[in-house]
Amino acid sequence: MKYSKLFGKTQKAGKEYESKSVEYLIRGGFIDQVMAGGYTFLPLGLRVMLKIEGIVREEMDKIGSELLMPSIVPTEIWKQTGRYDSIDVLFKVLGANELSKMRNDSEYVLNPTHEDVVSPLAKKFNGSYKDFPFAVYQIQTKFRNEVRPKTGLLRTREFRMKDLYSFHTSEEDLKKYYSVAKEAYTKVYNRLGIGSDTYYTAASGGDFTEDFSHEFQTKLEMGEDYIFRVPSTNECFNKEIAPSKAVDFEQETELKAMEEIFGEGIIGVDELCKFMNIPAHKTTKTLIFESEKGVIVAAVRGDYDVNELKLKKVAKVKELKLASAEIVKKVTGADIGYAGIVNLPDDVVKIFDDSIENLTNFETGGNKTHYHNGNVNWGRDVAKPEMFHDIKVAKEGDINPETGEVYEMFKACEVGNIFPLNTKFTDAVGYTFTDVDGTQKQVYMGSYGIGISRLIGVIAEKFHDDKGIIWPESIAPFKVHLIHIGDEGRVEAEKLYNQLIEKKVEVLWDDREDISVGNKFADADLIGIPYRVLVSKKSLENGGFEVKIRNNSSEVVFLNLASLLDKIYESESL
Amino acid sequence: MKYSKLFGKTQKAGKEYESKSVEYLIRGGFIDQVMAGGYTFLPLGLRVMLKIEGIVREEMDKIGSELLMPSIVPTEIWKQTGRYDSIDVLFKVLGANELSKMRNDSEYVLNPTHEDVVSPLAKKFNGSYKDFPFAVYQIQTKFRNEVRPKTGLLRTREFRMKDLYSFHTSEEDLKKYYSVAKEAYTKVYNRLGIGSDTYYTAASGGDFTEDFSHEFQTKLEMGEDYIFRVPSTNECFNKEIAPSKAVDFEQETELKAMEEIFGEGIIGVDELCKFMNIPAHKTTKTLIFESEKGVIVAAVRGDYDVNELKLKKVAKVKELKLASAEIVKKVTGADIGYAGIVNLPDDVVKIFDDSIENLTNFETGGNKTHYHNGNVNWGRDVAKPEMFHDIKVAKEGDINPETGEVYEMFKACEVGNIFPLNTKFTDAVGYTFTDVDGTQKQVYMGSYGIGISRLIGVIAEKFHDDKGIIWPESIAPFKVHLIHIGDEGRVEAEKLYNQLIEKKVEVLWDDREDISVGNKFADADLIGIPYRVLVSKKSLENGGFEVKIRNNSSEVVFLNLASLLDKIYESESL
Repeated sequence: MKYSKLFGKTQKAGKEYESKSVEYLIRGGFIDQVMAGGYTFLPLGLRVMLKIEGIVREEMDKIGSELLMPSIVPTEIWKQTGRYDSIDVLFKVLGANELSKMRNDSEYVLNPTHEDVVSPLAKKFNGSYKDFPFAVYQIQTKFRNEVRPKTGLLRTREFRMKDLYSFHTSEEDLKKYYSVAKEAYTKVYNRLGIGSDTYYTAASGGDFTEDFSHEFQTKLEMGEDYIFRVPSTNECFNKEIAPSKAVDFEQETELKAMEEIFGEGIIGVDELCKFMNIPAHKTTKTLIFESEKGVIVAAVRGDYDVNELKLKKVAKVKELKLASAEIVKKVTGADIGYAGIVNLPDDVVKIFDDSIENLTNFETGGNKTHYHNGNVNWGRDVAKPEMFHDIKVAKEGDINPETGEVYEMFKACEVGNIFPLNTKFTDAVGYTFTDVDGTQKQVYMGSYGIGISRLIGVIAEKFHDDKGIIWPESIAPFKVHLIHIGDEGRVEAEKLYNQLIEKKVEVLWDDREDISVGNKFADADLIGIPYRVLVSKKSLENGGFEVKIRNNSSEVVFLNLASLLDKIYESESL
Repeated sequence: MKYSKLFGKTQKAGKEYESKSVEYLIRGGFIDQVMAGGYTFLPLGLRVMLKIEGIVREEMDKIGSELLMPSIVPTEIWKQTGRYDSIDVLFKVLGANELSKMRNDSEYVLNPTHEDVVSPLAKKFNGSYKDFPFAVYQIQTKFRNEVRPKTGLLRTREFRMKDLYSFHTSEEDLKKYYSVAKEAYTKVYNRLGIGSDTYYTAASGGDFTEDFSHEFQTKLEMGEDYIFRVPSTNECFNKEIAPSKAVDFEQETELKAMEEIFGEGIIGVDELCKFMNIPAHKTTKTLIFESEKGVIVAAVRGDYDVNELKLKKVAKVKELKLASAEIVKKVTGADIGYAGIVNLPDDVVKIFDDSIENLTNFETGGNKTHYHNGNVNWGRDVAKPEMFHDIKVAKEGDINPETGEVYEMFKACEVGNIFPLNTKFTDAVGYTFTDVDGTQKQVYMGSYGIGISRLIGVIAEKFHDDKGIIWPESIAPFKVHLIHIGDEGRVEAEKLYNQLIEKKVEVLWDDREDISVGNKFADADLIGIPYRVLVSKKSLENGGFEVKIRNNSSEVVFLNLASLLDKIYESESL
């Protein structure tokens, strides 16, 4: 393609952007912002997206059949699965004006995901054990009513997704397919050039499942997630569920007498540590929760927070919320802020984190307004529970309980997820199958997503320097960025342009007359196409074309057409 | 692909469907209805759609650049162009439940088309005469709040569209591009196999333009449009705007005396003809309209209706509505139903259709409640206007005024349209360009659509017999439908299956064990893949495979692999 004909030219620097990749995607002419969380994919950006979709499609075709479900569906579908009122990003659709509403006043859901839609579809077609297992997928635009869209394509109200759904006759078979899907995903990320930095990560099941789900997380400083990786096994956990052991500090062996300390209005660990002049790891944090099984008292070391997901699992409860002031008063006898683990009533569930197991002479709330207890010790001042648990929010430096290694922690951006939904949705729509013996049995289901438009943002963030994007070859909008100098250069560039097209090498020729070569170089760096090929008097004298690979090096080589093609084909076959 | 692995198997006949093509698309496993006007494209149907999209993309890439605009945009965009309240199929999007609304209570438009969105986008990027002309297009899902979705994919609330927009520095340049686009469209329809039955048809500009637009109409009995075609020139008009001359009937040459006829409550041409025992073409139909230029009296021959679009153009008015009873009384002195052309006040505009120019001894309303005038004659009873006009709704048998030929009339379905929007949208968003002399000038714009999902319905309706669909090769979901008989057949079929895949021939192998060959044949006919290849003891004895082309003939030939491939490649290169 000739650059003069390209819609969406590069833009000068100047404005503030959320990140370098957002800047380069916008200034390079890949995307244009229409609203918060709403973008047009300009021709360059769409080319990248279609290439990603092509790779995803090839790998998904090996493990499922592509179909396309509607974006708008009757609200009844979401009511049947009980999610119409509970999904906080759900959009609905209805007539925009009086004329439109008069014609048809129905309302529809604009799907953010399709579990609710695919379950009745699968039920309609496949009801015999012979039909199983099977998987269907689609590549589609989805919609979420995001409260805070951010960082360009990373979180938007409208985005491209690949969503795949698998159906099984047993949980075991679902698990088997789960690893097939994992393999396919790994291939996708490898082909996109981010394989080595993308981690298969255990995460919370979210709305979908009480089990863990898994995320594919690409290491990225601007990512929103914190990943805890076990160095020896490469096992990864999202911070929200990472099992963790605290690093112990040396404890005093001489037990001091417990003391009641008056600290009027001293609430919170920071204030307390300052007031008492002790480090946070000498304190404990006690929180009172209400659950469907009654009051739960949870305690962690002062330098930690309580992880409610972990606490829910340990306590085996579904609902958990911080107790009201009234309940706190009833349980501790104090106002909020002074809860501790000494002298708690017997009839409340107590769940203590293992970070406090080995403490001596530690602080805890006084269970008396304005009071704290110092130099508390297990056994003497408070009964040591038979069992401590892991209910803490993991933090940097924590230890993986399985291997005893300190986690490697890094920020990352989610580029895919897989959920073992089990029977959540199939139960909701009454989807069973007839087994070989004629009985009706539960259908198991899994759900597998890849954020296609988000990947563009992740890859641009992953691969850039201070001049622009450096696209992996597999998804670059073009293979060759052709630039010429002088009249002779133009004539030869045009020849090369036509030859490359004939050889089916995608080429963008910056044929503009009124732009300096310097600016063209800058645009080429900004756009980030792998091979920059310059045709000039000098290059022709050197036997052909000056080729520079778009990376941090400044090395250039002179190649003729044949060797240029060899170089391109060689890298393609890798 | 193996049929046993295909999601969305064929279904037995039984239910009632809107048409044969809808029946075959649903029973064949191409689409599944989720709601009125909402369908899932099952794997077979999606394959057809992606092939159509591929053809459209190839042809559009020659005349424009592909991009992808958002489906949801701020309502302000549609308010800026003044269409938010006037488009009666417009959908809006907002939070579905309280949680969602609490997070973000903004409303968005769910685009049915993108003129309103692309105009500000184009304005943002291209403002110099050097940037023109340019065209961008997208292939995207669109949404319309249809009051009555119907006939499967022909009218749906959610559909796939290709929409292209071109921008120009002059109306002349727009017109030039208009024919470039026409050529590209013609190529698309030719490649889809419907070229010879698809007609370039002048139509109303609708919401978009006061000029004519053009539609591509595919001849189809179940189509919603009536096309009037001039045999010698192939020029076509949509009924809504077809210029027409009525066929004259022989007139009495002896002028009879005008008579006033009392007919209590006789209203409407049918009743009147019965009452007076005269044919409709001896009567006139007089309608009173209100417009921004005052009252307009329009008259056509009794066997015609008034075409308001034509009347608007002749009267050069923008608003037109049937007059109230009060106005009718004031103008005619009578209640509604007795308006005629005799004794009309001077101060109303009178526009008479040319179908009444040559009448003698004709009937017209009495302009007096319950009265009609018979044997009216021009000049004597009513002044003959200097000019008659064409303000009639064309009907079968009418004559094209240009060539004098009787129109060929047929029903058709719109598969594409092109609109010369001129400056309607560019004015609305203040989009001008800087000309070579530095002055700001108006940008001209055109809009060009192809209904991609609708085409699936049209093609299935166009090409079927009483057993199923007969897909054109270019868009068939697979090239070869492979069936085997017996164990030997299965072994050889599997070999052929793998060989075809290796040769990149798309093959669907009905590998099911528990289905009779007869049922497999019936499914093959229903699905409509071009080459049905049977592998059996008999076929192997005859040198290879029994090949039957999916059409109305029952001819079969025996081919070996090489000749089968030759046959397939040969037809592909056509």
